[in-house]
Amino acid sequence: MLIIGEKINSTLKATAKAVAERDETALVDLAQRQVAAGAGMLDVNCGTVEADQEPEVMRWMVKLVQGAVNTPLCIDSANPAALAAGLMAHQGKAMVNSISGESERYRKVLPLLREHGASVIALGMDDQGIPGDGEKAYAVGAKLVEDLVKDGLSLEEIYFDPLVRSVATSPSAALETLDLMRRLGASFPGLHFASGLSNVSYGVPERRHLNRAYVVLSMGAGLDAVIMDPFDQVMVQLILASEVLLEKDRWCLRYIEAFNQGRLSA
Amino acid sequence: MLIIGEKINSTLKATAKAVAERDETALVDLAQRQVAAGAGMLDVNCGTVEADQEPEVMRWMVKLVQGAVNTPLCIDSANPAALAAGLMAHQGKAMVNSISGESERYRKVLPLLREHGASVIALGMDDQGIPGDGEKAYAVGAKLVEDLVKDGLSLEEIYFDPLVRSVATSPSAALETLDLMRRLGASFPGLHFASGLSNVSYGVPERRHLNRAYVVLSMGAGLDAVIMDPFDQVMVQLILASEVLLEKDRWCLRYIEAFNQGRLSA
Repeated sequence: MLIIGEKINSTLKATAKAVAERDETALVDLAQRQVAAGAGMLDVNCGTVEADQEPEVMRWMVKLVQGAVNTPLCIDSANPAALAAGLMAHQGKAMVNSISGESERYRKVLPLLREHGASVIALGMDDQGIPGDGEKAYAVGAKLVEDLVKDGLSLEEIYFDPLVRSVATSPSAALETLDLMRRLGASFPGLHFASGLSNVSYGVPERRHLNRAYVVLSMGAGLDAVIMDPFDQVMVQLILASEVLLEKDRWCLRYIEAFNQGRLSA
Repeated sequence: MLIIGEKINSTLKATAKAVAERDETALVDLAQRQVAAGAGMLDVNCGTVEADQEPEVMRWMVKLVQGAVNTPLCIDSANPAALAAGLMAHQGKAMVNSISGESERYRKVLPLLREHGASVIALGMDDQGIPGDGEKAYAVGAKLVEDLVKDGLSLEEIYFDPLVRSVATSPSAALETLDLMRRLGASFPGLHFASGLSNVSYGVPERRHLNRAYVVLSMGAGLDAVIMDPFDQVMVQLILASEVLLEKDRWCLRYIEAFNQGRLSA
């Protein structure tokens, strides 16, 4: 399971302040602590700065974070110029957050992936928005994956995000998403699945329990990357445990390593 | 999800002391606190007393606990005379823990189920022991379920326990158990599934994380009863969350009730 740390994102107040003040110490600390907590990749997003400054700020952040930790980064922006700047500055294979079946986004992001050999989070939506029912979601997802493969990406470079809705308003949302991942996984062996955690529990109190159960259930259906707060220790512990149970961590090697590091207590 | 509270069991030191001293206050307290924590049924086991005293002690415990709480009980003993005494004393529909495909146990426990209209935990094993591989486990399980139905039980009265092995020694143990539940559930619609938590994580440090992830993954495969410590608040929270995600608690009604009772905090 790839844990993509979500903390270096300027929509978070503390991060916004660090970015505005170009506070390198604060951002380096945030990077190092996320990796120590279990993140294998760090999302970098500075979307709240002025649009014309975003490429330059993204370039600065990518260089800063890669100077502090050894993990690859997930370059996160809605602005293709900022994605390009981040990819240019990045050492090694980056991930891009994100592409989708929306024609304009697809047209602008695809060349960046090809030029920089980046992997990508592919959102399961198109120009009609997020598909409402299971058959449509499968069709939209399958077309997006097929298009990306036809345009030169390997299945292993694609992290499909099924865009789960909230169970507060769609009681079958999680079940439909699990089913979508199982179907796409069967159709496209090697395809990865990624998810964020802000949607499934939207509008429900004490949502962290829903997020945690959602990640475990989703791992059972093929989820192998998640954008999350790596400081949620219970979530990290459940992910490590699920990897053992799903035979992704045979003989509990990583689980026992985490135990030896004191990361399974509390 | 039926949470069967495991605390009234004389293999637990505090319970053994309360049983030995016939401490009604302690046992009533244990019963009431388990129900308040989320248990919908209470296991009652006094297997550590002298065999000739077990029926009498079981009768006393069943009457005591049912006088204190409104939940049905799971009468738990390897001694058919103790099961009979407990069932005789029990008001309403009891559960028996347990029957299996072992011929002697089957022959002795079945008449008790029929006489008292009890439901039962059915262990997936026979005279050859716990089956080693997936095909054999399915065959043993299907035969046991078919025998019970032929002998008068309904599928809704059977809680099949797939007897998961430890992932410490069998890396594929959990995956095989998930697969077994899915296959039996597809073959026998209405069949319930129950599991304890002492096996899957046996021999691994900080095993509670494995137990928690195992319950969530198992719920995704059909598990609907678990024998557990209801004072494990994180586990109860994950179960409540999983029920929402699996559409067993549409519109989050029980989840929000638990929130209002303060059971989702901490």
